Amino acid sequence: MRGYIGFDIGGTNVRCGIVLENGQLVGFYKEKTEAKKGVKEVIKKIISLIDKVKGEHPEVEIAGVGIGIAGILKPAKGIVCFSPNLPGWRNIPLLDWLKKEIPYPVFIENDANLIALGEAWQGAGKGKENFLLLTLGTGVGGGIVAKGKLWSGETSGAEVGHIKIDPKGERCLCGRRGCLETYASATWLIRRAYQHLKAGMPSLLNKDKELTAKDIFTAAQRGDILAQYLFDLAGWALGIGIANLCNILGFTTVIIGGGVSNAWNAFIGQLKYTLAHEVLAVDYGEIKVLKSQLGNMAGIYGACYLAKQKLANGQ
Amino acid sequence: MRGYIGFDIGGTNVRCGIVLENGQLVGFYKEKTEAKKGVKEVIKKIISLIDKVKGEHPEVEIAGVGIGIAGILKPAKGIVCFSPNLPGWRNIPLLDWLKKEIPYPVFIENDANLIALGEAWQGAGKGKENFLLLTLGTGVGGGIVAKGKLWSGETSGAEVGHIKIDPKGERCLCGRRGCLETYASATWLIRRAYQHLKAGMPSLLNKDKELTAKDIFTAAQRGDILAQYLFDLAGWALGIGIANLCNILGFTTVIIGGGVSNAWNAFIGQLKYTLAHEVLAVDYGEIKVLKSQLGNMAGIYGACYLAKQKLANGQ
Repeated sequence: MRGYIGFDIGGTNVRCGIVLENGQLVGFYKEKTEAKKGVKEVIKKIISLIDKVKGEHPEVEIAGVGIGIAGILKPAKGIVCFSPNLPGWRNIPLLDWLKKEIPYPVFIENDANLIALGEAWQGAGKGKENFLLLTLGTGVGGGIVAKGKLWSGETSGAEVGHIKIDPKGERCLCGRRGCLETYASATWLIRRAYQHLKAGMPSLLNKDKELTAKDIFTAAQRGDILAQYLFDLAGWALGIGIANLCNILGFTTVIIGGGVSNAWNAFIGQLKYTLAHEVLAVDYGEIKVLKSQLGNMAGIYGACYLAKQKLANGQ
Repeated sequence: MRGYIGFDIGGTNVRCGIVLENGQLVGFYKEKTEAKKGVKEVIKKIISLIDKVKGEHPEVEIAGVGIGIAGILKPAKGIVCFSPNLPGWRNIPLLDWLKKEIPYPVFIENDANLIALGEAWQGAGKGKENFLLLTLGTGVGGGIVAKGKLWSGETSGAEVGHIKIDPKGERCLCGRRGCLETYASATWLIRRAYQHLKAGMPSLLNKDKELTAKDIFTAAQRGDILAQYLFDLAGWALGIGIANLCNILGFTTVIIGGGVSNAWNAFIGQLKYTLAHEVLAVDYGEIKVLKSQLGNMAGIYGACYLAKQKLANGQ
C-alpha cells in the first residue's frame, strides 16, 4: 500500500499522521513540540517521528512527506521565513536540512493552507473545484483552493485573516488596522468583551474572570446582549470579508473551521445577511457557507495531499 | 500565417483587430456600436467585421475569434448575463448565436479580464506569471492573471473595482458602500470635486463647468489643494485595495491602466506609501506597480490571446 506522512507543527504539539493513497488515515501520533529547545531539536523530532511511523507501518510504502507550519513560508524554496509560534524560526532552510536525513520527497506549506487542502481532499470541500477556507481560532487564518489545488502566488499569500474590513478599525497584531482577525478571532472577541465590560456595559460575562470565546458563546446563547453584539460584529465582518473575496475570486463556496466556528449559530445569521447584501455576482444564487468537517485533523490530511499532488505533478 | 481576430465591444465603439501567432497586430478596425438598434444588430456587425477582416487579410489563416464585452458574463456557457453599456443585453446566448454564423472557434470574456490578458501577452505583464491589473476609467475594472492565464472561478469574478475600502463610505453604483471605484474612477473624482466645490472649498476648479478627470489632474499639477486631495484619496484607496489583494493572492506585480492612469504622478506617491504600510508579506521587497503599455489596444490583444490559449488547451 502506498501512503504519505503528514505533519502539523504547532507551537504546542507536533501532530503526525499516515494516510493512504485513498485518503484513509491509518495512524496518528502527537508529541510536545518543545520549541524552546531550539530549531534543530524540533527537526530531530520530525525525523524520529518519521522513523517511528515507518517502523510501526511496514506495510505502507511511504511515497512522500508533507509538513505544515504556522507562519510565513517560501514553500518552493523550502524556507520557513518566520513562525509566530516557533521561537527562533527565522529563514530556516527546513527542506534542505530534512532532505539530508529523510529518504522520501518532502514538501512544506503554511498550516492554514494545508487545512484548506485537507478539507478539499476528504472534508467539506470534497468534489469542489474552488473554495475559500477560514479558520477562526486565536487568530484568523485561511487558504484558497483553486481548481483543486492550493492557490499560490510569489509570496505565501492567502492572508485572508488580514483582509481589511475597516481602515479606521482597531489595530491588529500585524500592525495594520481593522483586519478581519480583529473581529472574528477568539483573541478579539475576548478583548472587545473586556473593553465593553470595563466601560460598564451590563452583561452575564464577568470582567474579573479570565474569559474564553466559549464563555462568550454560552452568554450569547443565554441572550446576553454584549455577547450577541460581539458575535454579530464578527458575523458582519466575516460577511464583508467573504463577499470581498468571493467577488474577486468568483467563488461560490466558503468553508469555516477553527475553535470559534463552534459558536456557529451565534454568528452565521449576521454573516449570511451581510454576505447576501455584499455579493456582486448575479444569477449564481447564494454563496454556500459550510462548516469544516475534519476539525484539527484537516492539517494532516492536507499535508499528505500536498505530497500526493506534488508527486503526481512530478515535482 | 496563423492569426486570431479579437473584438472589444464597448457601449460606443466596436473595435476589432487581427493579431498573428507571434503577437503582431496586422489590422485594426473601428465602427460605432449603435447598441440602441438592438442585440441582433450588434451581432450582425461582429459577423460582418469578421468577413471584412478575412477579405482584407487573405494571407492570414484565422484560427479563432475572441470577444471582450463589458459586464457580467458566463464565459464557459457563452452567455452575456448583463452589460451596463449595452441596453437589452440580458442573458444573451452570444456564443450559440455566433457559432451558427462563424466558421471559427469563438470565445467570450469580460473586457477588463481581456485587458489583463493582453498586457500579459504583449504588454507590461509580459514574462510575469502572476499579476493584478486595474483599469481606472469611468469605473474601475480589473483582471487577475495567475500562472500566465486569466483567473476565473464559478462566477465572472475579478470585481476588483468593487473591493470594499470603507464599509461606511459613499454608496457605489453597485448599491454597496465604499468600493474602490468610489475613490479611483473618473466618475467619482468628478463627483467628489463637485461635492467639495458646492460646499465652498476654494479651488482652481470651476463648479459651474462640466469637469473631467483631466481638469482635476491639470489643477493638481498646478498645486490646487482640492485636486491634490482627491488624487491622494484615490491613491490611498488604491493602496489599501491593492495591498488587500496582494496579501491574499500572494502577488508582487500590479499593472494600472485606463484613462485616469494618465494622472499617474498625482496618485502614485500616496498609492505606494499606503501600499508599503499595508502589505503583510515579509522578505519579498516592494510590490511593483507598473503602468499598462498597450493602452486601449490591450483588449484586442487579450481577445486574440484568449482564443490562442483556449485552442492550445484543446478547448
